[in-house]
Amino acid sequence: MLSASPTLASSVRITPDGVDILDRRVFPLECRWVHCGSVEEVARAIEDMVTQSSGPMFAATAGMVLAARAARALDPAAAVAALHQAGRRLIATRPTNNAIRDAVTAILAIVPAAGPGQLADVVIERAAATDAAYLARSAALGENAAALLPDGARILTHCWADWYLMATVAAAQRRGCTLEFVCTETRPYLQGARLTAATLVEYGYTPTVITDGMVPAALQAGLADVVLTAADRVTMDGHVINKVGTLAVALAAREFGIPVYVLVHAPDPAAPTASDVVIEHRDGDDILHVLGMRSAAPGARGYYPAFDVTPPRLITRIVTERGAFEPAAVSGHFEQEEPAWPA
Amino acid sequence: MLSASPTLASSVRITPDGVDILDRRVFPLECRWVHCGSVEEVARAIEDMVTQSSGPMFAATAGMVLAARAARALDPAAAVAALHQAGRRLIATRPTNNAIRDAVTAILAIVPAAGPGQLADVVIERAAATDAAYLARSAALGENAAALLPDGARILTHCWADWYLMATVAAAQRRGCTLEFVCTETRPYLQGARLTAATLVEYGYTPTVITDGMVPAALQAGLADVVLTAADRVTMDGHVINKVGTLAVALAAREFGIPVYVLVHAPDPAAPTASDVVIEHRDGDDILHVLGMRSAAPGARGYYPAFDVTPPRLITRIVTERGAFEPAAVSGHFEQEEPAWPA
Repeated sequence: MLSASPTLASSVRITPDGVDILDRRVFPLECRWVHCGSVEEVARAIEDMVTQSSGPMFAATAGMVLAARAARALDPAAAVAALHQAGRRLIATRPTNNAIRDAVTAILAIVPAAGPGQLADVVIERAAATDAAYLARSAALGENAAALLPDGARILTHCWADWYLMATVAAAQRRGCTLEFVCTETRPYLQGARLTAATLVEYGYTPTVITDGMVPAALQAGLADVVLTAADRVTMDGHVINKVGTLAVALAAREFGIPVYVLVHAPDPAAPTASDVVIEHRDGDDILHVLGMRSAAPGARGYYPAFDVTPPRLITRIVTERGAFEPAAVSGHFEQEEPAWPA
Repeated sequence: MLSASPTLASSVRITPDGVDILDRRVFPLECRWVHCGSVEEVARAIEDMVTQSSGPMFAATAGMVLAARAARALDPAAAVAALHQAGRRLIATRPTNNAIRDAVTAILAIVPAAGPGQLADVVIERAAATDAAYLARSAALGENAAALLPDGARILTHCWADWYLMATVAAAQRRGCTLEFVCTETRPYLQGARLTAATLVEYGYTPTVITDGMVPAALQAGLADVVLTAADRVTMDGHVINKVGTLAVALAAREFGIPVYVLVHAPDPAAPTASDVVIEHRDGDDILHVLGMRSAAPGARGYYPAFDVTPPRLITRIVTERGAFEPAAVSGHFEQEEPAWPA
């Protein structure tokens, strides 16, 4: 699917004795893998931000593979219980993005139909199918997003949109589009400066990195003509919950008349509006450090909402695997054809 | 004037053999002084951001003291020429803030009236008077700003407003106001996380530090009810040129109905509007690093406009040493009483 194969396209690897997860807290400044030998270790790696964006979904499906392997030693009832317990543990890692919940739910849906001796194999196969479905949905989303980009588009990104961005870039390249990129660095974890910029370099671009406060200045200077971000969650009434700072980008885009395209496989039917989504707050100490080094005065405290809420009026289109929707009409996604997600 | 004496209130010190400048690139994480033995070394320290905000003005007046000392060895005509050359060098260090230009101009204005044998002494005395006038003007500004703050005000700051902020806090404390602070960290140099936060801690507060992209999220969560920033330059038609990110803060404040107060001694009569102000661009490499450590992917480039331009419609009041003005009417400053600046 991709015209290049970026490092972050395969950053969760199932091994004979566990799962290796590329440490996105330091990549590409360091290329370090974290080995997880159990579901609990996978869950902690997700909580500790070893991986993020789409990474936790792939880590969670890999965690379910580990749970299935361990279940081989259990009697049927205990195996089913252990799989559900593993699923609950993985879903509880991070509350705002719904991808883990949906992936684990899709995997566990197969359990009742599995014969007693087949349970582990069926779950492992289902986990692989869930990963594959994620990529297929991303590819469809990427085609829909690329269709909105004019040749020569100069794209402002925020944080790291992972498969949504990779699929969009791949689709745009297949269309012969030339693109340029301006990336916010995305403090505190610097996903934009590290993950997005590194991947765009792997695709052959020379991205321009700016600090998070420079978005209006960059638009004032005419450096970008479209904003492209992922969403961790989109509510049925078109609110976008994404990496903190997305709202700041959207406010700047409105001021300078730049369209904002938000990428998500689908809105979440379980979230009618923004108040239905839990906004994760992380350790304020992370704000007082950069890459592990103290960056703030002693005696200060940090405040770290990991996500913010952008209202539909600040978004131009929400691009899903089924099309590009006006935010207020994004629930129309479900009136389109069936998803690629395994039934 | 101050109820406490913060470290940054005396960060430029004239010594028998030069000028010591507190290195604001690392304070308070490190307390390191840079010694400058000549005007050229002072100029380079300013260019290298050893000091910033009000610091360059004090460094420049100290540089003029060094120039006056060196001029003692010259014949009168050469001494006058050397002083003017020193002034030009110092003014050329940074183009956007007009404080160095105004201070050097005020010092050099005394030169024609000085007797031949008195030149050095007169310039040195004038430099001290210029520093004192800066503090007196800041005190007047601080009183005007404090008058706008309700008791219990929760203030969002951006970057480091130096004497403007210290004078405002001191005046508010004299009024018995309780205050709270939320400080943007202000990448790339982290002046908010380091300088503003450290000084507020010295004043007895526990400031909350946020990343630059979190301003709308913080206002969305109701953490602040007023924005207070300095301006490096205010044009006669009310445009505010200040540390990049100020425009982002102002856009967020508009979205959430929070007043924005901008502090500056006076608008600049030499700048009728924003196009009259040179916006300094600094080395893009600074964006790819934090505190000297690489923070961005290899192959990316950085973009670093040091300032942005906030239009008058996004500002509530511009607070000068003579009052609080609606931005479009800020030229009315000059219809008020004479300045404290030495005549």
